[in-house]
Amino acid sequence: MDLINTLNWRYAVKKYDGQKVPQEKLERILEAIGLTATSAGIQPYRLFVINNDQVRQQLARDSFNTQITEASHLIAFTAFETITKEHISDFITFMAKERELPETALDSYKNSLEQHILARTDHENFIWSSQQAYIALGTGMIAAADAKVDATPMEGFDSEKLDTLLNLREKGLKSVLLLALGYRDAEKDFLAHQKKVRLPLNELVTQID
Amino acid sequence: MDLINTLNWRYAVKKYDGQKVPQEKLERILEAIGLTATSAGIQPYRLFVINNDQVRQQLARDSFNTQITEASHLIAFTAFETITKEHISDFITFMAKERELPETALDSYKNSLEQHILARTDHENFIWSSQQAYIALGTGMIAAADAKVDATPMEGFDSEKLDTLLNLREKGLKSVLLLALGYRDAEKDFLAHQKKVRLPLNELVTQID
Repeated sequence: MDLINTLNWRYAVKKYDGQKVPQEKLERILEAIGLTATSAGIQPYRLFVINNDQVRQQLARDSFNTQITEASHLIAFTAFETITKEHISDFITFMAKERELPETALDSYKNSLEQHILARTDHENFIWSSQQAYIALGTGMIAAADAKVDATPMEGFDSEKLDTLLNLREKGLKSVLLLALGYRDAEKDFLAHQKKVRLPLNELVTQID
Repeated sequence: MDLINTLNWRYAVKKYDGQKVPQEKLERILEAIGLTATSAGIQPYRLFVINNDQVRQQLARDSFNTQITEASHLIAFTAFETITKEHISDFITFMAKERELPETALDSYKNSLEQHILARTDHENFIWSSQQAYIALGTGMIAAADAKVDATPMEGFDSEKLDTLLNLREKGLKSVLLLALGYRDAEKDFLAHQKKVRLPLNELVTQID
């Protein structure tokens, strides 16, 4: 499908119809997310596909997002709380291996990453990691729509509860975003037939000549 | 082009060949960005297509990003520094008009937006606005690649200088990201033939069963 049509087709689904997304489509969406553009190539986030019903039910309790339990799949996007020298070093080792280079060939790249990233506070790096996760979420939404799979991005969930349920703190991660996947129930979803509301391009975009 | 191929094709171009991106392709990329998923539909960011050579030259001074002047086009993604009651009210008025609803039909939506957004600090809202801009940047990168246009996303630029050059403070905006567009110089760009380095999916993604 044409990208503009794909973007017009998607919306944040409120009501799913209960159908399961086939495994191969899920894998394709994850593959696309894995190829997302990411600052310096670092991918400072990890994804969790939450198939466990109990975890989903506990997360859904006291939430207005019924998609957490009703969607076919639920993906949590989590970001590293801190970026350490070891993260950078592991990344450089991995890049050298993938590109069949001696690690020393990447010394100046490594130094510039260290200088840049380690000069920031942990809070600043967490914001940066979460921003990278937002790009990945965006790819996930486009990849889902491209596969005619519906999706719901969610920011307003109890991230501390999810961090506990998934033992994220131990892994140095914090949950940032959720992406539910499934198929819209076009009859019961009040949003399914609403016009997509977006600013006219001449309000969104200014030309500086 | 297939989305996975599109994502594999793109990389952050370091060296452009000087060719201009046709206006219709630029417009298509901007149209795609305009359709980006955005929290609550609010689009708390604005884009500037910087065609002015002087602005680009001044921004490029003391920057290692030669793409700022060498690319065909340069788009700045800017986010609102604060989200006000008026932003929300204008958005609701616009949505009611677009969906041909009386504004009162959106009262509860408006209240929930106000409660949620206005409870946050300006700093928190700016981070949120910038996160939304990252999703838009991601769409822009995919839309460019889909049109076989190369791109370079940039975080590390002098945002205060750009804010001054574009008088952004007056508009309540701060620059967050740049996206250069053009065509790669595959011979002179050392990155053009490097393998894309991404974590294996089983390291990026954990299944919670």
